[in-house]
Amino acid sequence: MKLLEDKIRTDGVAVNENILKVDSFINHQVDPSLMLAIGEEFAAHFKNHGITKVATIESSGIAPALTCAMTLGVPMIILKKQPSKTLNSDLYQTIVTSYTKGTSYELTLSSKYISSDDHVLIIDDFLANGEAATGALRLIRKAHATIAGIGIVIEKSFQPGREKLISQGIEVFSLARIKKLDVGTIEFMDEE
Amino acid sequence: MKLLEDKIRTDGVAVNENILKVDSFINHQVDPSLMLAIGEEFAAHFKNHGITKVATIESSGIAPALTCAMTLGVPMIILKKQPSKTLNSDLYQTIVTSYTKGTSYELTLSSKYISSDDHVLIIDDFLANGEAATGALRLIRKAHATIAGIGIVIEKSFQPGREKLISQGIEVFSLARIKKLDVGTIEFMDEE
Repeated sequence: MKLLEDKIRTDGVAVNENILKVDSFINHQVDPSLMLAIGEEFAAHFKNHGITKVATIESSGIAPALTCAMTLGVPMIILKKQPSKTLNSDLYQTIVTSYTKGTSYELTLSSKYISSDDHVLIIDDFLANGEAATGALRLIRKAHATIAGIGIVIEKSFQPGREKLISQGIEVFSLARIKKLDVGTIEFMDEE
Repeated sequence: MKLLEDKIRTDGVAVNENILKVDSFINHQVDPSLMLAIGEEFAAHFKNHGITKVATIESSGIAPALTCAMTLGVPMIILKKQPSKTLNSDLYQTIVTSYTKGTSYELTLSSKYISSDDHVLIIDDFLANGEAATGALRLIRKAHATIAGIGIVIEKSFQPGREKLISQGIEVFSLARIKKLDVGTIEFMDEE
C-alpha cells in the first residue's frame, strides 16, 4: 500500500535492526484518515471472502480493525489481554508470550461473540514473530469458527511470523512488508 | 442520544446496582455503525470548540475516539496504560487507580504528541468514579495543553465522576446518562 509505505518512509523511525517506531501515526498518535484508508484496503482485499466478523487484539489493532469492520459492515470483536471482572465466565482463553515486552499474557474471548458459523478476518498492527496472531488463531479455532485470513498493517518480513502462519494454511495480507531495518534505513520487500 | 439509549435498553444487561454490561456492542464485540454514529455525535457537539486533538485511554475508548477524530479531521492520541519498551523515554506519566479492577496502573503520554498549543477533547467509553478521566486530565495539564471537554459514551450518573470533573470546570458531554441500575432495570436521566 503506497500511501502507508510513504508514511513509514517519512514518519517511521528505524531505531535499530529490529525496532521500527511508528508511534506518530499508528500506535500512540493515530492518523484517522490513514486508518480509514488502511481499513478500506483490507476490506477491498477480503470483500468476497464471506467474512462475518473482524477480530483484533487489544489495543493497537483496534483502530485498523474498526475501519475494516466498518467498511465490510460486520461486527468487530476485541480479543482481551486480561479477563475483566465484568466479563462473563464463559470465555475461551489462551496464553501468549510477547517477545517485544518479554512477558506473557492471557488472551480471552467470550463464547457469546463467536460461533462455528463465523468466518473471521484477524487484523493486527504488526506481525513479527507471530505470537499474538498465533494466539488469536488458537482462540478462534477453540470456538470452531473458520479463519478467512490475517490482515497486517506492518509486517517485519525478516522475522518468522509470516512463515509460521502460512505453514498453517493461513493467508497473510500485509499492507507494508519490511525487508530490512537499520538505523536510518527502512527497506521494503518488492511489490508482489 | 436516542440510538444509543435504545441499544442499551435492548442489548445492555444490568447485572446489579453498579454493573452494566455492554460487551455485545461497545467493549468486547463492537458495532462499527453505532461507533461511527457515536463519533459523529461527539464531533457535532464539539465542532466549534477549536479542538486540535482527540485523546483517549486504551483500550475501550479507542473506537469512539477514532470515529470522533475521523469526523473532526484531527489526530487521535492514545494514553497508554503502561510504558512500552519502544516508546521514547520522554513521557508524561501519572498513576491511576481503577475501582472496577481493584488495581493501579500508570498512564503515559509521549511529550512528542502534545504541546501547549493543543486544545484536547478527551473521549472515553464509561464515566463512573472518574479516576481514568481525572488521570487523563492530569497528563494533558502536565503538557500545558488546554481541555476542550470530555465526551463519554455511557455515564453512570449515580456515581461521582461527573461531579468531580464539573467541579474542576470541565464540560462533560455524555451520550447516555444512567440514573439507576438494578437487575433487569436500566433507568436513564431525563433529557436535558
